[in-house]
Amino acid sequence: MAAIGHRVWAIPEGYIPATSLDNSHEFVSHEAACLLNTSTSEADVRITLYFADRSPVGPYRITVPPQRTLHLRFNDLTDPEPVPLGTDYASVIESSVPIVVQFTRLDSRSPAIALLSTMAFPSG
Amino acid sequence: MAAIGHRVWAIPEGYIPATSLDNSHEFVSHEAACLLNTSTSEADVRITLYFADRSPVGPYRITVPPQRTLHLRFNDLTDPEPVPLGTDYASVIESSVPIVVQFTRLDSRSPAIALLSTMAFPSG
Amino acid sequence: MAAIGHRVWAIPEGYIPATSLDNSHEFVSHEAACLLNTSTSEADVRITLYFADRSPVGPYRITVPPQRTLHLRFNDLTDPEPVPLGTDYASVIESSVPIVVQFTRLDSRSPAIALLSTMAFPSG
Amino acid sequence: MAAIGHRVWAIPEGYIPATSLDNSHEFVSHEAACLLNTSTSEADVRITLYFADRSPVGPYRITVPPQRTLHLRFNDLTDPEPVPLGTDYASVIESSVPIVVQFTRLDSRSPAIALLSTMAFPSG
Repeated sequence: MAAIGHRVWAIPEGYIPATSLDNSHEFVSHEAACLLNTSTSEADVRITLYFADRSPVGPYRITVPPQRTLHLRFNDLTDPEPVPLGTDYASVIESSVPIVVQFTRLDSRSPAIALLSTMAFPSG
Repeated sequence: MAAIGHRVWAIPEGYIPATSLDNSHEFVSHEAACLLNTSTSEADVRITLYFADRSPVGPYRITVPPQRTLHLRFNDLTDPEPVPLGTDYASVIESSVPIVVQFTRLDSRSPAIALLSTMAFPSG
Repeated sequence: MAAIGHRVWAIPEGYIPATSLDNSHEFVSHEAACLLNTSTSEADVRITLYFADRSPVGPYRITVPPQRTLHLRFNDLTDPEPVPLGTDYASVIESSVPIVVQFTRLDSRSPAIALLSTMAFPSG
Repeated sequence: MAAIGHRVWAIPEGYIPATSLDNSHEFVSHEAACLLNTSTSEADVRITLYFADRSPVGPYRITVPPQRTLHLRFNDLTDPEPVPLGTDYASVIESSVPIVVQFTRLDSRSPAIALLSTMAFPSG
């Protein structure tokens, strides 16, 4: 199968709630970029974060092996700096090979979780 | 990086619930257009609202600085007039430079919040 | 502004929950196609419903005035027949002028509502 | 009506929660690919699953009759193997004729259900 997707994706929405009624790995409030690499090459991925009132931060660098998916939690990014909680941000994801990117939030601030998801916006 | 996105975006869904079980800024029922401007120029943005039974209202004018994101709550629009609560509306967002737009609602009418999100529809 | 959108849209997901903990108009479980007509002409819209195990039903005919939005509940369709509750369906929406279509479900089977939304899939 | 859609679709997000507060068919935690075949030919569909740490699994083979919709639960896939619960996965869906694909999760780990949905990403 040919590689599916694009090399650049944008996600304008980003907000990791600062609180969680359940702080287990499964239920802690988090946001994820789900990356699918159907190609036969490793995807070298660079993520840049945008904010409301300061310069972009990045790149965060990760890899997705060939024919694998990586559901990357923004909560887990640390280098060059963690993603601040309770703060509006956005992201741009650039890959060395075509990938497909979907964005998801699990929000556990309430007694029942809430979910949102959308395909990221492809470009290039 | 080249500017990502489009200059015109449409969002057919719009409905700010009239009630909230928690009226704090964080949890009050709201809808937002998340705007990402990856360009090196300020984005001059004009928003027009459409309704079921009256003429469009606008433009609402805002700016997004270069390389910044703005998560704009429709609840915060005031000029030329506030967005009525509990009322069906839609929006068209026009920008002087390419941007990416994502739409989100946080609904706190129930004991636990509900979320929805989708990329806006790009055009032009 | 030029008319935004497409003349044909598809929504593979359709399922109106058969129950609601609150049957008021605001909170009854429902699905909606949010139609935005930015053109200066009336949109003559034809909706066809697809099912798992029987022939398509339709067209349902509605109009959206120029420069208006219509948030049409599938629950309100009656001619040629109501949309059955608790049943998988899909829809195709055809318009005489370009429109933009977004799909939303409010699900009130649980003690707190759940929401989903996505832009419909454009074609033609 | 001409067949609407594409022959290849990708869904990077996949995660069937391992638990449910209600295990009835209606409320058990599940994920679905909603397939709409508007063509006049049967759609022969092949689904391949991608994982974080092992080779892709598939194809899973299903058919969608002409002018029908199939809301396929990933929970129901068994051949060549069931989809593991509580595990990150992704999917690629290939069809012999153009179809439209939408992805949905119902999550019943909490006292109130949560929903997410997005159109899958089209390719080819």
